[in-house]
Amino acid sequence: MVAEDEGLVVTYVLKGDPGGCAARARLLAIEQTAEVSPSLCAGAFFEDRVLGRVESIAPVGTDRCEVVIRFPADVVGTDFGQLFSVVFGNVSLWDGVRVAAVRPTPGLAARLGGPRFGIEGVRARLGVPERPLLMSAVKPLGRSPSELAAFAYDLARGGIDLVKDDHGITDQVFAPFEARVEAVSAAVARANGETGRRCLYCPTVTGPVDRIVDRARFARGAGAGAVLLSPMVVGPDFLRVVAREADLPVIAHPALTGAFFAHDDHGIALPALLGTLMRLAGADLVVFPGWGGRFPFTREGCQAVDRALKEDLGGVRSAFPVPAGGLSLDHVPDLRKVFGRDVVFLIGSALYERSPDLAANAAFFLSLVETRPA
Amino acid sequence: MVAEDEGLVVTYVLKGDPGGCAARARLLAIEQTAEVSPSLCAGAFFEDRVLGRVESIAPVGTDRCEVVIRFPADVVGTDFGQLFSVVFGNVSLWDGVRVAAVRPTPGLAARLGGPRFGIEGVRARLGVPERPLLMSAVKPLGRSPSELAAFAYDLARGGIDLVKDDHGITDQVFAPFEARVEAVSAAVARANGETGRRCLYCPTVTGPVDRIVDRARFARGAGAGAVLLSPMVVGPDFLRVVAREADLPVIAHPALTGAFFAHDDHGIALPALLGTLMRLAGADLVVFPGWGGRFPFTREGCQAVDRALKEDLGGVRSAFPVPAGGLSLDHVPDLRKVFGRDVVFLIGSALYERSPDLAANAAFFLSLVETRPA
Repeated sequence: MVAEDEGLVVTYVLKGDPGGCAARARLLAIEQTAEVSPSLCAGAFFEDRVLGRVESIAPVGTDRCEVVIRFPADVVGTDFGQLFSVVFGNVSLWDGVRVAAVRPTPGLAARLGGPRFGIEGVRARLGVPERPLLMSAVKPLGRSPSELAAFAYDLARGGIDLVKDDHGITDQVFAPFEARVEAVSAAVARANGETGRRCLYCPTVTGPVDRIVDRARFARGAGAGAVLLSPMVVGPDFLRVVAREADLPVIAHPALTGAFFAHDDHGIALPALLGTLMRLAGADLVVFPGWGGRFPFTREGCQAVDRALKEDLGGVRSAFPVPAGGLSLDHVPDLRKVFGRDVVFLIGSALYERSPDLAANAAFFLSLVETRPA
Repeated sequence: MVAEDEGLVVTYVLKGDPGGCAARARLLAIEQTAEVSPSLCAGAFFEDRVLGRVESIAPVGTDRCEVVIRFPADVVGTDFGQLFSVVFGNVSLWDGVRVAAVRPTPGLAARLGGPRFGIEGVRARLGVPERPLLMSAVKPLGRSPSELAAFAYDLARGGIDLVKDDHGITDQVFAPFEARVEAVSAAVARANGETGRRCLYCPTVTGPVDRIVDRARFARGAGAGAVLLSPMVVGPDFLRVVAREADLPVIAHPALTGAFFAHDDHGIALPALLGTLMRLAGADLVVFPGWGGRFPFTREGCQAVDRALKEDLGGVRSAFPVPAGGLSLDHVPDLRKVFGRDVVFLIGSALYERSPDLAANAAFFLSLVETRPA
């Protein structure tokens, strides 16, 4: 039995004047729970157990309000589809509703769980306790398993900590899933044998929804050290289920997420989606575009994601921010100033382009984080 | 082996002047496939087999262009996570990219499959060949299985064709999944025994991603006639997998989809998402807000969804439009003018509120569509 004050506390910004927002807030608290006319959910039982409760309404300028609503834990449940649906499902179809922040109460946070490994758990697997971590990708789509394995070998030999598949490399004819995972896992293991390091190979397990858990288990059996999936492509609840079933760290890729934070007045704010929600759902590492790369992200937006992945959240483990998206090696010093030591730098194309010697390029990348920051 | 001209043809509207759009179109065709710097995917192999191909660019006004890009079938695959990811995954993180339309080539359409039953198949199950169909919901969240079953019995007795669970009723303590599905299925079967009709109960199978297929199979075993899920909540590929594994019609609910079409210059256009993509992914019926209810949808938007669900799509079956969202019985005549006979009217709260006799209210609803339109 869940204490009745346990739940999910969501801060919305609604368009409207204060009177209009008060009415909209009340309707939102019903829309996301009982989803009926108010006359059909009247009374103490619904007020106490089922409906969202409007906890506060504060004007923001003249034409919008910040509204805090607490949803009962029994309504939210513990699968992340239902959690996303309570937070934004039906009201995604309204105008002018933006999720600014999401906070679980302590009891709900404990039930949800969050990252299985978190920052410290991933560091322990790698044996790298302090410096920023390095990630790169085997790519592009179109290469064969042996070509990808050769890249992975060089990346691991040069000192990359986490070698992932590109998120769009799933099970295409160019590099079928099982053949690729076996070849790349073996290549990374061979490199680790030579270097004494513990580079982790992180295959993409995004795919048919009835194969994803099997793919994650296969990856673990083949020697993978983590897995990557795109939560909004396959369903956010797969983070939780894959982490549990494969007992491996999971990396969340941001494919499709941009639709949620493209609009200033609607959607789910960047740090709430790629920070708090991905972390609560179980991501140990969250990939997002860093500023200065090929995506239009700002330094301030990235700082907000970083905070959301690391701030106190009722005992939920912290997750690694993984700035990415067309970053170059020149960006590393500046990124380091913002994210501090608990960050994973993901550089793909720029590492392949620096020189024909991919292992040397990886070693140069490593040298950038082995020294203390200037 | 797939013919090399088979693929998915996507029409984007990009912000930018014609020169800027040409450059962006080329980068988009790479971003959604090889996802590397152009220098790393040069050459005939990548051009022919991997990258999107820009087929046309046409200015729209002075500051945007309509760009048509064909993605190779081998890259798209046949699971709908990957398909969504190719259409909009990484470019969701760009500014000013809107998916206006999606078209599979005939060979890809055949591989994707689309609805397993479609309009004619659902009509055959119901034994209702011509008139518009009626749907209502057992609700609200908070009611017990026996309360929900009593509502379902009355709705079926009165003549509703499809009785669904509210999409937010999943497996909460108020009405656990198995107890609810058994109770409501039995109630609908009892009503069918009395009326001689074939009302279909359509439980919500949205839930933990490792339980959804089992829930759909359980529902079928208990006597359910279709199932409902929220594709963007659980992952769009579940439409395809659940339809196949349960061999039942599937109803797509629009929870979370609003984020994709809230922005004029970004996202996935309403008819592309709730029309073409849901249909290709396997939805036999697609729920969306009708105009005039409690959601800000327009008549023109609903007409566009209707067209996308029924237009010729290379042999893919048509799917039922299910306008919903706070509609009243007064809306039925006007809705009928737009959608014609191949439509399912979903009315929930207004049916419960008309009078205390829910079966009589359902019978009145039925009387509105048993006559020819005025």
